Amino acid sequence: MANPVVAEIRRGSLVESRHRGSVAVVDAEGAVVLGLGDLDTPVYPRSAVKAMQALVLMEAGAAERFKLTDDALALACASHGGEPGHVAVVERMLAAAGLDASALGCGVHWPSHAPSTQALARSGQSATALHNNCSGKHAGFICAARALGIDHSGYTQPAHPVQRAVKAVIEDLTGVVIPDQHRAVDGCSVPTWAIPLKALARGFARLGSGRGMAPERARAAQRLRAACAANPWHIAGTGRFCTAVMERFGSRVFVKTGAEGVFCGALPESGLGVAIKVDDGAARASEVVMAGVIERFVPLNDEDRAALGRLLHPTLRNWNGIEVGAIAPSL
Amino acid sequence: MANPVVAEIRRGSLVESRHRGSVAVVDAEGAVVLGLGDLDTPVYPRSAVKAMQALVLMEAGAAERFKLTDDALALACASHGGEPGHVAVVERMLAAAGLDASALGCGVHWPSHAPSTQALARSGQSATALHNNCSGKHAGFICAARALGIDHSGYTQPAHPVQRAVKAVIEDLTGVVIPDQHRAVDGCSVPTWAIPLKALARGFARLGSGRGMAPERARAAQRLRAACAANPWHIAGTGRFCTAVMERFGSRVFVKTGAEGVFCGALPESGLGVAIKVDDGAARASEVVMAGVIERFVPLNDEDRAALGRLLHPTLRNWNGIEVGAIAPSL
Repeated sequence: MANPVVAEIRRGSLVESRHRGSVAVVDAEGAVVLGLGDLDTPVYPRSAVKAMQALVLMEAGAAERFKLTDDALALACASHGGEPGHVAVVERMLAAAGLDASALGCGVHWPSHAPSTQALARSGQSATALHNNCSGKHAGFICAARALGIDHSGYTQPAHPVQRAVKAVIEDLTGVVIPDQHRAVDGCSVPTWAIPLKALARGFARLGSGRGMAPERARAAQRLRAACAANPWHIAGTGRFCTAVMERFGSRVFVKTGAEGVFCGALPESGLGVAIKVDDGAARASEVVMAGVIERFVPLNDEDRAALGRLLHPTLRNWNGIEVGAIAPSL
Repeated sequence: MANPVVAEIRRGSLVESRHRGSVAVVDAEGAVVLGLGDLDTPVYPRSAVKAMQALVLMEAGAAERFKLTDDALALACASHGGEPGHVAVVERMLAAAGLDASALGCGVHWPSHAPSTQALARSGQSATALHNNCSGKHAGFICAARALGIDHSGYTQPAHPVQRAVKAVIEDLTGVVIPDQHRAVDGCSVPTWAIPLKALARGFARLGSGRGMAPERARAAQRLRAACAANPWHIAGTGRFCTAVMERFGSRVFVKTGAEGVFCGALPESGLGVAIKVDDGAARASEVVMAGVIERFVPLNDEDRAALGRLLHPTLRNWNGIEVGAIAPSL
């Protein structure tokens, strides 16, 4: 059966495109508060679980060992735009562990932040692995290995102790024992493990509330969330949805995008977790759907409402700045 | 009712994302040879009808008047990557009409061809309207106005004689009288008129075969198709689907992509026209679906089959070049 339409693109007087998908809003005990579409088929969470992956860094004691400041902890949870300020923090993380960009296994791509790509080229430089949107997460994996006193080489492989620890954390938070055949390779070469949306949302309810977690893990999660709330630019970047949400809501809302239309989040005040998958993989849809979930489940003041309105109903403008349409969630 | 799944993205052992949509393959008399999904709801064809828009240029006598070579005629039908060779031809078209880039009303964006953006920035330059993927079409509109002896200013507006002529051509080919409320503004600021997929496909059957068209218009269409077949790089650019198809198939297949998951084409040998709309607007899906239509309706030799295979089943590789998945049509 087809999942429901969760977002529509309007142009002129007509709906031009539509996105289907699934939405799970779940509490730490697994009770479904909002369920749309398919909550049971395993979904690759991609970058949406970077905060879960970063728990390994925290539990390895790497933050203390390498004196990682909060902006670095946010970068470990980030899909950043490759802006100069992002790159500088990743370089600092690697330097603290006695390494440099050559240790990164994420691959090279130009900054997703277009002005940063143009500035890089204008200065005669080229993209490096530091500009990869996942470089902060990878620096975190490397710091975790170094803090554990193990060889960081091969840290992207499923059999490496760091990735085994990541899998154990994700299984603990989501309550799912992940079979081998649900493992695939992510864009940055680390494993991504498919998990049903309902379980993913439960994992984020735990991550946000600390409920159902061992005390040390709950403290680590709390510190990561606080680091992200205090450094929202570091978790994404200029003009990005995750940054805009966390700039406005601070510690009240944690959100993290993933490739292929995945979005996860935690609403710590209500103890709820959120997991969204847009069937076709479109971020423009997963973003407005996440904005719709926030509107529905987070108490809003007037300023919240104004800021959220721009994220709920983005205006589409063409190359001349003319308003040609709009995107909206249909929850 | 939901349209059928027309393309799937696999990662590891699972389907990661899926795209729904509609496909019409129709002959010049309007008989549906293949119909999937909704063929009757009006769809904005966006850039997929640039060859129809360029008929106005031909019928105005602009090709003769301004001695436009075949590469320029292909550029008038193109969504180009903003590569230096594209930009040079557009500049030449404008110069032939006594004008320059300041006449273009399409707006400015950086080349969609990433290496061209990097090279432009590296040389200390910035994007201009010439780099806009629609600049060739706009140069064509401007040349049409000049050849008709009318003021080209305001040529992007629906009331301008050039846009009125474009609308008349599209109505003639598709057999649809387009109501005003089905007009919206395209990314480059000219009107885009929504038309049912079945009628769009019929229009392309006519464009490709000359059947059901006035003789002068049929000759103009034939010349545009020949110009595109001889200059496939000019209709899109390096690494692009339209270019790859027409490099392989020449005058046997005309294809043109449009924004928001639209793809149109003509198969002149069989007299068929094709119109595809992916519900969610994804080009990665409309491309493999078009490849699937070509596989089904065009007689293939071994070389055709090898070339088409790469377009039918693109491999997904990550930033390290590791194969992580694949895209495939499901027709």
